[in-house]
Amino acid sequence: MLKLDLSGITGFVGEINTDAARAAEKKAAALPMSGWMRLPMQTDAELDALRAAGRRIAEHSDALVVIGAGGSSLGARAIIEALPDSLGVQDVYFAGDNLSGAYTAKLLKTLAEREFSVVVTSKSGTTTEPAVALRVFLKLLRERYGKDFDGRLFVVAGAGRSPLREFALARGCALFDIPEDVGGRYSALTAAGLLPAAARGIDIGALVRGAREQAEQSGEAALRYAAARQALYSKSFRTELFASFEPCARALGEWWKQLFGESEGKNGGGIFPASVSFTGDLHSMGQYIQEGRRDIFETIVDFKKSPGDAVIPENGEFDDGFDFLTGRGISSVNDVAREAVRAAHIAGGVPVAELSLPGLDEASLGALIYFFEYACAVSACISGIDPFDQPGVEAYKNIMLRELNNLPKTSE
Amino acid sequence: MLKLDLSGITGFVGEINTDAARAAEKKAAALPMSGWMRLPMQTDAELDALRAAGRRIAEHSDALVVIGAGGSSLGARAIIEALPDSLGVQDVYFAGDNLSGAYTAKLLKTLAEREFSVVVTSKSGTTTEPAVALRVFLKLLRERYGKDFDGRLFVVAGAGRSPLREFALARGCALFDIPEDVGGRYSALTAAGLLPAAARGIDIGALVRGAREQAEQSGEAALRYAAARQALYSKSFRTELFASFEPCARALGEWWKQLFGESEGKNGGGIFPASVSFTGDLHSMGQYIQEGRRDIFETIVDFKKSPGDAVIPENGEFDDGFDFLTGRGISSVNDVAREAVRAAHIAGGVPVAELSLPGLDEASLGALIYFFEYACAVSACISGIDPFDQPGVEAYKNIMLRELNNLPKTSE
Repeated sequence: MLKLDLSGITGFVGEINTDAARAAEKKAAALPMSGWMRLPMQTDAELDALRAAGRRIAEHSDALVVIGAGGSSLGARAIIEALPDSLGVQDVYFAGDNLSGAYTAKLLKTLAEREFSVVVTSKSGTTTEPAVALRVFLKLLRERYGKDFDGRLFVVAGAGRSPLREFALARGCALFDIPEDVGGRYSALTAAGLLPAAARGIDIGALVRGAREQAEQSGEAALRYAAARQALYSKSFRTELFASFEPCARALGEWWKQLFGESEGKNGGGIFPASVSFTGDLHSMGQYIQEGRRDIFETIVDFKKSPGDAVIPENGEFDDGFDFLTGRGISSVNDVAREAVRAAHIAGGVPVAELSLPGLDEASLGALIYFFEYACAVSACISGIDPFDQPGVEAYKNIMLRELNNLPKTSE
Repeated sequence: MLKLDLSGITGFVGEINTDAARAAEKKAAALPMSGWMRLPMQTDAELDALRAAGRRIAEHSDALVVIGAGGSSLGARAIIEALPDSLGVQDVYFAGDNLSGAYTAKLLKTLAEREFSVVVTSKSGTTTEPAVALRVFLKLLRERYGKDFDGRLFVVAGAGRSPLREFALARGCALFDIPEDVGGRYSALTAAGLLPAAARGIDIGALVRGAREQAEQSGEAALRYAAARQALYSKSFRTELFASFEPCARALGEWWKQLFGESEGKNGGGIFPASVSFTGDLHSMGQYIQEGRRDIFETIVDFKKSPGDAVIPENGEFDDGFDFLTGRGISSVNDVAREAVRAAHIAGGVPVAELSLPGLDEASLGALIYFFEYACAVSACISGIDPFDQPGVEAYKNIMLRELNNLPKTSE
């Protein structure tokens, strides 16, 4: 279902050799945290439980607050924003991914007139941001729904023992696991991504099916993509741009940045991940991509069948020179733009990989997520990096905790 | 009002010498397209006309569609998103900055039950995306409000002759100018940014006053920032990250990326601009920043007084080890995070410039916009680049038009 076109790369680095990628694949699969590779094998019973919880949220809430930082929210956000026509819970708000008092105050105000539920996702239970947000929304749950708010709180926690998990068990809240051998940035297809998606009315069965089909293939495309990235990096291409032509894929770009940046950005090396949303960003980053430093390459994701369209009417008021477009679908102009951009960027010295998928639907999205996870793990292993640790993030978390503990209380 | 702290830079490049920046400043001011430098000198009458138009929009609409690409929408978006508590027109939607049929179809559906107005901003009148969107929304205006929809259409056009301008004059629509000597990415403080902001209930007088105060200063801070950036670039720091700790400043980061990327990304050179929103992105890009390639530097914007806050309550349910935070304002934790991040990044080999402003309000925002515009123009001129052209974007626009003209009609 997913197709990879590297013809815009080979002109810069020659034919792609996947020998090193094949060895790296074995190395990645043998690492303890490679459990996500086997994720799309969830049982029907597990999916049914997620669907049932999602339906419960949608039935009694018109707003869902998803509390989580990093991998605990980026996957859910990417999936939900990419499928905006879903018909489950009306609005999904994210919390616990910032420490802004203003943001929190505004969200509390927004919820004042809404019936809401809360999903809290924390693998470790030791991250400051979601711990702060959980306090705020536990209080709101008590105020609005009394002490027996359990039917509105859904917990996604690491499978190991943690205070959050014990609390959910004692309270009888709905509780879902993130397997111990799956790290945050590889958790989009665990309950971390699937529960909020199910609440939004997204077909999580199709998401997982798409990922499974991708997993059952030989992984050849992922190996070629991983090998191409490393070949470019060894030729001093240092920055990779994730580019899509659908505004609703913007959060997918954010998810992608975490996946690659956190997996590869170590030991003073790694490809710097950035993202652009075309055609809009052609009018901002377009100049740089076309004529700036020649050390960037681009990965364009093309969702073949647009999930919606509108016909271009005539101007009807004045002649601006664009009436030759009358009667076309806007999506067909977007397709022309994508081809033009691809050609212009390659000609300008920017290698371009193109991924295409049948559409912007659940199955395509599942396949794409699995593809990138797989390619990322292999790519990191080619360059001898552990794709599954994040020592720099742990450092920040610990410094934060130490500094916070050192502070005098505001009331003192 | 704006303060610049370069103490996190000088350890990497030594004391900042502004001699070259001073010469570059003169060069920039002498360029034909430097009219924006004199922008904050708008007359009260001009501001009153914008305010009146904004009030009219807010009175008869609960949604505003802003049609514009690149500089014609990024400034408006940055200002509006940064001030989310404004009380004018309820929702502002952006169009003409993408070619997604799905996005357009969804926006049309959203507007079906809303009273709306349209602001169309196009300096040249020759950009495909806004031309397409204008057709769609002219048709919707006619369908919903009949042929005499003029009171709901507001035009912002280049001051030179253009079909869009002639149409607005003939129709008697409200018409505002973008001065001929101000380019798109320097137009945030023209009607392009100010009219949508006024409609949203934002105090555009305070925005302009903030910019004016910044302009009346010697520009010393902007020169030092420009000189520091170029000193870093000459020491092989290639990527700059705009970082803020308020999620509502995310669009400001997008505006900033266009400003710097489109001004400097030329002739195979230029600092690559990227942006992060902390603390959220510490859990995604944080790993890369801390331990990835050591050729990035960071510009942190600190809005001193948070525009809102919420107190951290006790957990009340279980002991997760964070009860020592009970009673603090969330913003105070955000402040601790900012200091911790700054120290950790500098220690990790990432030079950090810090800009601070009194708050996240109109005057601070106006000052910040002017500061960045000024510093950007000077920075480009230091490296001998014209900050005001964008040959690469023009190339894309022309290729697009040619390809579209070559296509057979879908109906054929």
